[in-house]
Order: sequence, then C-alpha cells, then structure tokens
Amino acid sequence: MPSAAYFLEHVGETYGYFFKTHDLLYSAKSKYQQIAVFDTPDLGRVFMLDHYINFTTTMEAFYHEPMAHIPLGMVDKPKNVLIIGGGDFGVAGQILKHDSVETLDLCEIDEEIPKVCCRFFPEITQKAEKDKRFKLRIQDGMIYLREAPSESLDAIIVDSTDPFDTSAAFPLISEEFYQLVHRVLRKKGVLMQLMADYMFFHQTWHEVLPRVKKNFSIYNPISITIPLYITGAWGFLLAGKDRNELNTHRITKEYLDKLGNIQTMTPELVKGWFSIPKYVEKALTAPEKK
Amino acid sequence: MPSAAYFLEHVGETYGYFFKTHDLLYSAKSKYQQIAVFDTPDLGRVFMLDHYINFTTTMEAFYHEPMAHIPLGMVDKPKNVLIIGGGDFGVAGQILKHDSVETLDLCEIDEEIPKVCCRFFPEITQKAEKDKRFKLRIQDGMIYLREAPSESLDAIIVDSTDPFDTSAAFPLISEEFYQLVHRVLRKKGVLMQLMADYMFFHQTWHEVLPRVKKNFSIYNPISITIPLYITGAWGFLLAGKDRNELNTHRITKEYLDKLGNIQTMTPELVKGWFSIPKYVEKALTAPEKK
Repeated sequence: MPSAAYFLEHVGETYGYFFKTHDLLYSAKSKYQQIAVFDTPDLGRVFMLDHYINFTTTMEAFYHEPMAHIPLGMVDKPKNVLIIGGGDFGVAGQILKHDSVETLDLCEIDEEIPKVCCRFFPEITQKAEKDKRFKLRIQDGMIYLREAPSESLDAIIVDSTDPFDTSAAFPLISEEFYQLVHRVLRKKGVLMQLMADYMFFHQTWHEVLPRVKKNFSIYNPISITIPLYITGAWGFLLAGKDRNELNTHRITKEYLDKLGNIQTMTPELVKGWFSIPKYVEKALTAPEKK
Repeated sequence: MPSAAYFLEHVGETYGYFFKTHDLLYSAKSKYQQIAVFDTPDLGRVFMLDHYINFTTTMEAFYHEPMAHIPLGMVDKPKNVLIIGGGDFGVAGQILKHDSVETLDLCEIDEEIPKVCCRFFPEITQKAEKDKRFKLRIQDGMIYLREAPSESLDAIIVDSTDPFDTSAAFPLISEEFYQLVHRVLRKKGVLMQLMADYMFFHQTWHEVLPRVKKNFSIYNPISITIPLYITGAWGFLLAGKDRNELNTHRITKEYLDKLGNIQTMTPELVKGWFSIPKYVEKALTAPEKK
C-alpha cells in the first residue's frame, strides 16, 4: 500500500467522508476486519475499521465520555461493568474514573485491535492498562454473557462496530443477546449500546426495537452529537431492566466535575440527547427502507 | 462539465465530504460564487456554494428551523425582521410562521441564488414567495443597514456563507457591522448569525468576539447540531442589545407546537445548544491558530 492515500468512508453509495493521508502508519486485515491507522493534519491520529472511522485523537472524548458516563450515571454506585468491543480502551479509561467500580471486564473479539491501539494510541490505552480493576478478554461477548452468572453486572456497554449484517457486531442485536443481557444485569442494571443513525439506517432500529421491548421494561433511543460520525447525531440505545424510568437527573454538573477532565458532556447536552425530535420519531416508526 | 462528477467539500486540507452525482442539474459561477445543484440518492437535492454544501432537501430543517425560531423566541411579538443572505428563502419560510411578524425583508447580495433556488427548490421558496409580508431585495446587507432607521427591527438573522476572508460574508463580521446592527435593532432586539465551527475555525471567533463585546450587552456562542455541517455541531452567535440575558425559557413545547410542523427542534435540544462544553470554552479562549 502506498504511503499516501485517499480513504473514503461511505455512508450511502454516493456520499461520505474523504481523508487524504501522507502518513499511513498501519494497515492490515485481521480475522475480522481491515484495520488502519494514519495521521492527519486536521483530525490528529485516526483509527479506522473496515473503512469507517472509529475515533481520532482530537475527537475521541465525544464518543468515549457519553458511552461511559451516561449509563454509569443511571446506576447507584456501579461495581461491576462489562464492555463488549471497545478494544481501544477509550470507554474503559472513562469507566475507571468511577471510584465505585470494582471490576471492569472488556470482551474484544479481535485480538489485533488492542495490539494496534496499545502501539499507536498509548495515551488512550494506558489508563486502563495500568488499572488493576481492568481485565481484557479476547473473547466473543456472546460467549462471555452465556457463561456469566445471573444478575452479576451493573452496566453492559456495547462499543462495537455498527451492527450491520456484514459486521462482527451483528449477533449483538439478536433476540438471544437481549435475553442474555437481561439475565446478567442486576435488578437496576442498564445497557448502553451503539446502534445506528436515525436518518440513514432505519432498518436496524426496526429490527432491534421489538426485541428490546420484549426483554426490557424500559428503553430510550438517544441521539448523541458526535462530530466525527455522519450525520453528527448518532443513535444509541439505552435500556433498563426492571425500572420505570431512565432519566438524566443524576447526570449533574457535580457528577461530571467529580469525574474530572470532562471535555464534551454537560447536563444540558445530555438532556438534549434524550430528547427525540420529530424526524427521529418518524424514522423509528416509518416503514422499513429497502 | 460532465453530468457525473465527484464533489469534494474540503474542511481541512486533507479532510472533508465527498458526493458523487450522476444528476448535476446546474453549475455556474455568479458574480460572487460558484453555484451548483445536484440530486443524490442519499441526501436528496443538494445546493452547494463554492464547493460547500448549503442545504439539502432532506436536511434543510436542521438549519432553517433554529435560525428562525431561536431568535424570534427571544423577542416579545416580533414585528419587523431582516434576513441578510438566505436567498434560498428557507429561513424566511420559517420566520413567516410567526403571526406577529408584519414585515420580513431579505437582503441577498447575489441575485443568482434566489433565481436558482426558485427554479430547483420551489417547495422551499414558495412559502415566502407567496407571502405579502416578504420582500426580497438584491442588495448588500451592509447598505441596507446603513440606510435603515434606528431601532426599527426586532431581529436580524445573518444566514450567509461562512464569514471567511474569501467570502462575500466577510464584511458581516466587521466592527462596522456590529455597530450598525446595534443601531438598527430595537431595545430588546436580537442578532442571530452563522459563525464558525469551534474546532476548526477558532480564528474567526477570536476576531469576532471582541467586536461583539464592544457593541452588545450580552452574547451567547451557541452550537447547533446540524448533521450536514462538519463537525455536526456548528457555531452560531446570538447577541442581544440592552438586555441582561438571552435565555431559552420561552422556547417551550407550546411555542414550537404553535408554529406547526417543526421537525428538528425540541426545548431540551435548544437548552443543550446553549450549553458550552469545555472543548468549546477552550477553543474560544485559546490563542489564535495560524
């Protein structure tokens, strides 16, 4: 591969991002996906999976902060947390800011991802690597869940690639997955999961929501502003077991200040992310797009 | 120009959007800028100025709704409104949803823009075209302001291209501009202005804020989630004359419901847009980027 290249990130067939780099640092196909790392003058160092941007050093906090601090803010003194995916340890580093957390397991199916990230993104991976509460498992998250004791976790965070049918994350939107998550979560436990954009990927939501409804007493589709992801407002699923509400009232300024060095979250922004405008409602109820 | 083309929208030198189209409907250089219209399967019909996306039919509401309903929500029964730029009449159509509005003048410097938009985007332009309160002026907004009576307007909305030094909008961030706006606004009047992204275009903010501070009693940098604009969270300036606060408490569900058919705004989202996270604060106070 040449050392200068254009990377195209397709959203639709005819639309997407381009990135030109003269500093391709790594590019190889693992068992599961194409992994690439390159430097850019505009975005810092970029980590790309299957030609989709995963994160950049300049913008990682936009994704990693809410993925950790929204679900953990919903649970009283969360002790035991599981991340499925997240082999860059970005969410893990945020989770470990919570003093109440006693164990954090991370199930990454692709062993190449932590290797590449520890090599090229040490400032992100180190926080977790150095923490004794953190345990990396190179394992399919489905297998972990099948073997885990019932009601043993306070939060499960799915930091996967987009759960399209071509992705290793596809089983993580199956009926079995939601049943397993429900069994393994404690009574007040929550699930936070990367899902799909509301404008371009209706179909994923249409497949997932009936499965979620069947297994969880409450769920919220939320839309977090993540500048790097087309369309800037990406969709996530937050689901609660045996609860009447998932609300944001505990995600206060004091809560965020105590975690230290939060770059992108404010209590007002989080409330906004929970507020579903008409276009999202419409997407969630519209007939499937073929 | 061929009928199939790649359009690249550069954000930095090496980063941006690409759009491939087989349906280039219009492409010509006006006195002020390159204008292009094309159809895409992913985004609907696209309107592009100088190789920057202006709006698409699928996503126009994300920009046009807040540009109109945030400033008008701050003023008690706004009667007289000016739009500078906005030759696609998208913001105008939203402004005219307000029954209290008696006159809406729109100063578009480039006569080709309304012509092209009325031809290719009639579903957007018609609302204003058919309304007797609306008056299109092909005129430099600076000249309009110089000639306008003092304290004659309730709101001024600058819906321009990005105010970089290569743009026709550059005079709209000058010292004189803010003096003129201050003179022409009524006592409780407000200015809403497209400004610059906080991550990539610090310098514009550093130039503008001292001029705004000198002329206005209060201002808010706000960050609106607009999926089409890199980085998804674009920067706007809201400034008030002889006021102590610009707040969102009047932008309620009732206010939005009364306007009818609002797609993208909710009161919670608007509160979020007013909440400036640490990375924005940092950008606004950081030393200038060269």
